[in-house]
Amino acid sequence: MKSNCTINKQKLQKLNNYILKNENSCFYECGYSCDNLIYLSLGSQKLFITDGRYEIDAKLNVKNCQVIVSTNLIKTARKILKTSNIKKINFDPFDFDVASFLQLSKKLNINFKQKPNFSKLKRIIKTNDEIKLIKKAMDIGKDGFKKFKKFLDLKGYNQNELYLNFMAKSIMSDYGKYQLSFDPITACNENSAKPHAYPLETRFKHNSLFLMDAGVKYERYCSDRTVTYINKKNKLQQKIYDIVLKAQENAINKTSIGMKASEVDKLARDVIEKAGYGKYFVHSTGHGIGLDIHEYPHISKTSDIIIEENMVFTIEPGIYLPNKFGIRIEDTVAIQNNKAVVL
Amino acid sequence: MKSNCTINKQKLQKLNNYILKNENSCFYECGYSCDNLIYLSLGSQKLFITDGRYEIDAKLNVKNCQVIVSTNLIKTARKILKTSNIKKINFDPFDFDVASFLQLSKKLNINFKQKPNFSKLKRIIKTNDEIKLIKKAMDIGKDGFKKFKKFLDLKGYNQNELYLNFMAKSIMSDYGKYQLSFDPITACNENSAKPHAYPLETRFKHNSLFLMDAGVKYERYCSDRTVTYINKKNKLQQKIYDIVLKAQENAINKTSIGMKASEVDKLARDVIEKAGYGKYFVHSTGHGIGLDIHEYPHISKTSDIIIEENMVFTIEPGIYLPNKFGIRIEDTVAIQNNKAVVL
Repeated sequence: MKSNCTINKQKLQKLNNYILKNENSCFYECGYSCDNLIYLSLGSQKLFITDGRYEIDAKLNVKNCQVIVSTNLIKTARKILKTSNIKKINFDPFDFDVASFLQLSKKLNINFKQKPNFSKLKRIIKTNDEIKLIKKAMDIGKDGFKKFKKFLDLKGYNQNELYLNFMAKSIMSDYGKYQLSFDPITACNENSAKPHAYPLETRFKHNSLFLMDAGVKYERYCSDRTVTYINKKNKLQQKIYDIVLKAQENAINKTSIGMKASEVDKLARDVIEKAGYGKYFVHSTGHGIGLDIHEYPHISKTSDIIIEENMVFTIEPGIYLPNKFGIRIEDTVAIQNNKAVVL
Repeated sequence: MKSNCTINKQKLQKLNNYILKNENSCFYECGYSCDNLIYLSLGSQKLFITDGRYEIDAKLNVKNCQVIVSTNLIKTARKILKTSNIKKINFDPFDFDVASFLQLSKKLNINFKQKPNFSKLKRIIKTNDEIKLIKKAMDIGKDGFKKFKKFLDLKGYNQNELYLNFMAKSIMSDYGKYQLSFDPITACNENSAKPHAYPLETRFKHNSLFLMDAGVKYERYCSDRTVTYINKKNKLQQKIYDIVLKAQENAINKTSIGMKASEVDKLARDVIEKAGYGKYFVHSTGHGIGLDIHEYPHISKTSDIIIEENMVFTIEPGIYLPNKFGIRIEDTVAIQNNKAVVL
């Protein structure tokens, strides 16, 4: 059954007729994007439709594709499709809202074929160059974590999570030099028991547990990492930390090509379940990462995707004890020479 | 014809059966939202469906509505709809992507009626309390602009736009205390000729023109403002500045209830056109503002919406001279006692 779940990247890359709206999908095709665009691939003809605000930048930066400036992108795309004589075009139904899709496709006499997530699937196996960019983003991110920890130790005492979140953004971005992959999660004690905690006014004390989940982008490729600083004198925290670390190490050390993503999830989950904390591991073990912070493969209980060389994903088990604390340990790995190598 | 274009807020507020996914639309209904939700209004029954990560917060914060925790929100919503016996439900086709909508509605035997932007339209006329929150957000924003200008004068010299952008975010948010309405635009000289400029490595000099477009949120309500600091010795900059200011003042002073939004746009546009710069005013005069940074009414050439008491929108004409500079002046106004009052 395995072969059914292997992503046929070659087949996806041979798709000729498709339409995109998503920024990262478009960037992957032509090296540029902006927040108002339609990208059309019609056989060998590639078109980038945008509005006047982005004309200068688009013309400077797109590769192998024609820039068309329009005040109504959908109308322009329709006009092009009408005169193109194509019979079928692929689109990602997650990429278009219902209203835009109906405007685009109405009475066109073209078969709009749903290909859910086809751009993300096309990107599931990274090139070596892409892995280098993610590694560079990870390196910048790790440096940020180090600097943030120094700040936390020296100046974090009695600051609230909101300010610590601001400082996480400042330090991780190197004061505006890098874009963040997402808004960092910075949570003390009880708040860390929420996997997606928003920062509160809770103040950081000398004995606080502190969880930080953050990443930066390098040339648009994302990094992602979580570190939990525990109070080492707190025996429960130390115990939970050790279980989570063991779960993460088990998944990293035993992942290999040919496994299902669900088996990778199981490698981490089994350790936590055996330790009796299964019901407190409330999310998946990880997710693919690249131009988007969440890509394929999902490392979850239900994912049948087969692990292949040059996939890149996070391994991030966690245990969340409501009203007490949460501990998550996250690294990003690339499958290289049949091993999960921590980037 | 005017009455056709008046928004029937009462009628929209009487809608009983509808489904929402958008965070701000949901917050408007029940006082809480998170980034994974479906909100269902089925007659007098109101349901908030979310996943386990948000259970604690949702149960604490939603008003007049039941929280349902689910690992598959769409499946749960379908199940509820199936057993509800309703025949018709309203939805915003901009609020659902094609894939989610098809999953939700497939074989349900319920008429999903398109009501484009119905939540935003419902919110077009603000309550006095909402105007107070926007005014408070504007006050915090204005204070931020003042502090940023001080920083720019004292420490901005020779800093690049990326760092100035970082500092704009830091100062406007009062170092993490407030959320920003959007990523600020901070552009010097040539870069300011792009209405939606991204920060570059261009350095700010003593004689640089500097444009900043920024806002903050107060209790989730947005502010929005643009200030352009020109080099007063540069005659062309001063000339363009005076035209833009005159255009803005003309629109603010002459806007009144009963006008079409397009007439408000014309009040600004006419001044710029008469001065011979019409083709360099490349966007609309303004946009409504509230929980979303862009709401109704659009103050554009083509908007037939009738201006009413307690609407809140921006007035932001601009002139953009390619490869030279751009000047935009933006304030947010509320229609109060038949006048556009600057907040």
